[in-house]
Amino acid sequence: MTSTIPATARTSPARALICRGCGAEYPLIAQHACYECFGPLEVGYDAAALARVTRAEIEAGPANIWRYAPLLPTGQDPSARVTLDPGLTPLVAAPRLGAEFGIDAPLWIKDDSANPTHSFKDRVVSVALTAARGLGFTRFACASTGNLANSVAAHAARAGVPSVVFIPADLESGKVVTTAVYGGELVAVDGSYDDVNRLCGELVETDEFEDTAFVNVNVRPYYAEGSKTLGYEVAEQLGWRIPEQVVIPMASGELLTKVDKAFTELVEIGLAEAPAGGWRVFGAQSAGCNPIATALHAGTDVITPVRPTGIAKSLNIGDPAAGAYALEAVRRTGGWMDFADDDEIRDAIRRLARTTGVFAETAGGVTVAVLAKLVASGRLDPARETVVYNTGEGLKTLDAVAGVVGPTHRVRPSLRAAREAGLLG
Amino acid sequence: MTSTIPATARTSPARALICRGCGAEYPLIAQHACYECFGPLEVGYDAAALARVTRAEIEAGPANIWRYAPLLPTGQDPSARVTLDPGLTPLVAAPRLGAEFGIDAPLWIKDDSANPTHSFKDRVVSVALTAARGLGFTRFACASTGNLANSVAAHAARAGVPSVVFIPADLESGKVVTTAVYGGELVAVDGSYDDVNRLCGELVETDEFEDTAFVNVNVRPYYAEGSKTLGYEVAEQLGWRIPEQVVIPMASGELLTKVDKAFTELVEIGLAEAPAGGWRVFGAQSAGCNPIATALHAGTDVITPVRPTGIAKSLNIGDPAAGAYALEAVRRTGGWMDFADDDEIRDAIRRLARTTGVFAETAGGVTVAVLAKLVASGRLDPARETVVYNTGEGLKTLDAVAGVVGPTHRVRPSLRAAREAGLLG
Ligand SMILES: Cc1ncc(COP(=O)(O)O)c(C=O)c1O
Ligand SMILES: Cc1ncc(COP(=O)(O)O)c(C=O)c1O
Ligand SMILES: [Zn+2]
Ligand SMILES: [Zn+2]
Repeated sequence: MTSTIPATARTSPARALICRGCGAEYPLIAQHACYECFGPLEVGYDAAALARVTRAEIEAGPANIWRYAPLLPTGQDPSARVTLDPGLTPLVAAPRLGAEFGIDAPLWIKDDSANPTHSFKDRVVSVALTAARGLGFTRFACASTGNLANSVAAHAARAGVPSVVFIPADLESGKVVTTAVYGGELVAVDGSYDDVNRLCGELVETDEFEDTAFVNVNVRPYYAEGSKTLGYEVAEQLGWRIPEQVVIPMASGELLTKVDKAFTELVEIGLAEAPAGGWRVFGAQSAGCNPIATALHAGTDVITPVRPTGIAKSLNIGDPAAGAYALEAVRRTGGWMDFADDDEIRDAIRRLARTTGVFAETAGGVTVAVLAKLVASGRLDPARETVVYNTGEGLKTLDAVAGVVGPTHRVRPSLRAAREAGLLG
Repeated sequence: MTSTIPATARTSPARALICRGCGAEYPLIAQHACYECFGPLEVGYDAAALARVTRAEIEAGPANIWRYAPLLPTGQDPSARVTLDPGLTPLVAAPRLGAEFGIDAPLWIKDDSANPTHSFKDRVVSVALTAARGLGFTRFACASTGNLANSVAAHAARAGVPSVVFIPADLESGKVVTTAVYGGELVAVDGSYDDVNRLCGELVETDEFEDTAFVNVNVRPYYAEGSKTLGYEVAEQLGWRIPEQVVIPMASGELLTKVDKAFTELVEIGLAEAPAGGWRVFGAQSAGCNPIATALHAGTDVITPVRPTGIAKSLNIGDPAAGAYALEAVRRTGGWMDFADDDEIRDAIRRLARTTGVFAETAGGVTVAVLAKLVASGRLDPARETVVYNTGEGLKTLDAVAGVVGPTHRVRPSLRAAREAGLLG
């Protein structure tokens, strides 16, 4: 407890980009892969700078992700942020959902659908684009399974910066319209997300895209750090405690690894307490796209790419960039992974809505359905406190449930019609 | 600046229900019309209790509407609230939108789509249902143009209380699904909102509905007070200043009158400063449902009901309960009203999204389109600070813009296809 310098007066605690493969270090530039081993780069911090951060300093910050700026690679100067100010979303007690699954201990939904464009992607985009502007980029881009597209287009519109967003052509209309309406360029690609991502990897090398920051390609190390705030927030909202168990949806696997990284940092620098037996990280995928969970179940480190299917389109990454690191985090903490099929996803969306008032998109359905499976299989302990991450909004994937819910009665506007319909008992 | 009792330890500052027509007073029960003159009842406060409220007390409260509990009729005891904790939504600077309309002075969007069910209705529902539970009701209900339905169903689900929601059968699917998913009863009525409302007025008198609180019928006086928080918040977010001009969408006209009431209260009790020339309140309707604006333009007090049409369904109340009070507030403050047609609404939704990153539902399109008209007609002064209320979320009315926005390019996943499509300049 030494420093009381306000967060806004600080400089970044980031020190270097570090290769997750061979440990090689690079300056804090726009680079995402190691020149030595092609491994992914990650932001490394100055341990002394992190150690100076206090709870009081964070608590005095704004009611959004930027309260954690002292723990992020960028955004210390409020005037330099490219942001919709996401974060500090509700942590909702879910005792009635817990009761349905036989969970006695406290169960929480971290409801990240409350972000400005209604998914957790606003967190990563705010950090990525703030870094991008600082690095001199003048156009913003991404390859997206949908939510990232919404968020990049909205951030660019707020900042008045041109954007070009790449999506698979078969996305839900809730995600296409919600990107297109912001007026940037929107490129529908005939192919899977993995095809879109590959194309963006090629475009980023062209002269024509030299001025363009692809949030999840050339500035990916900064982007990925934004997910840490979903770990910090849960800990702070629990009174600076790490929960015993967390269940997290996986597409690339990045979010899961960064929540775990956030917990590790908080404990290392003394800001939060770990539970007695440590925390356990659980990963959720859909049956239509389960390459990481399949590798875990097979006991291997080798993730075999799949061609995704199914309604959980936002999680449909068949070749997950951070899959190996997600496996590592789950194995190290004694967690597990599982997957849910489309009917289970729909059922879980309804169950969550009915018991908590939270309407999740398909990704949230995946996570809640997997929670049920983890309890049933004994992998997740129903006697321990659990946080389930809902990372997206039901309004974006209406079609998933539009066929299975609707009015319970239809009547003419008269008391007699209401009586005949049984509304008066 | 006398009291420092925390808000949570306070009792309600409400004193009585007062008839807006004849001034007759009633106790704080479930009643909405005067026995003497059939006029609507409104919550009246103990002036001394309001005068004791301090800025510091509010600022120390939670980051949601309940920070204003010392100014509300109910909700002082946090454990007795029926709520999703709405409020403290962003006040977004909109200089680029202002520039498009020739507005030089600060222009702000109060973005209430950020609420839990993504409209301002969460505010009124939280206050109404908290009052309802306190009054002993065991079932929650409403007549709705859509957003209220979503909010009542979600609040009931969170609280574990049965609900029965009445909607016109032709609502947008974004509003039907988002109500049905919470698992309560949902009654589609073949008719307009006004028909639905009339039916609910009959049902509430039956024995079978004795236990049922209709948020906008029998507990309407409490419900209406929730809208005051949209006035308090804007003032607090501007540093305890009332803006010179506000533009507010109208259905029943209640929201507009309550924002004005909130400003009046804040000035009376010394919490906020009024602008030198007072504030001016502007009302927005759609061309398909403009009975209040039409009465203003005609210079009459008589509001002639209409049968609503057009895409701004959430504002489609043809027989507006608070229309006369909205007229009064606009005339008293020197404001004005106008209306926009469907094409203007669509255009305004896109303009707002493109310049601010806020994606509004049709009601927000109405308000922004009317802002443009008010500047063009000279009714609204572009040299004065203006706050525009966006009260709903674009995802709920996707169809309104789905036909006019979409991908700008469609390509196969190859660099060559991208080049041929002109993406490389
Ligand atoms: C709603 C939602 N949840 C979770 C994820 C998973 O994120 P990650 O790729 O970091 O695993 C995504 C990715 O797009 C998403 O859209
Ligand atoms: C999005 C939205 N804005 C504004 C209004 C208008 O509210 P009031 O009836 O208080 O005028 C409504 C009413 O349903 C609404 O749904
Ligand atoms: Zn390396
Ligand atoms: Zn009366």
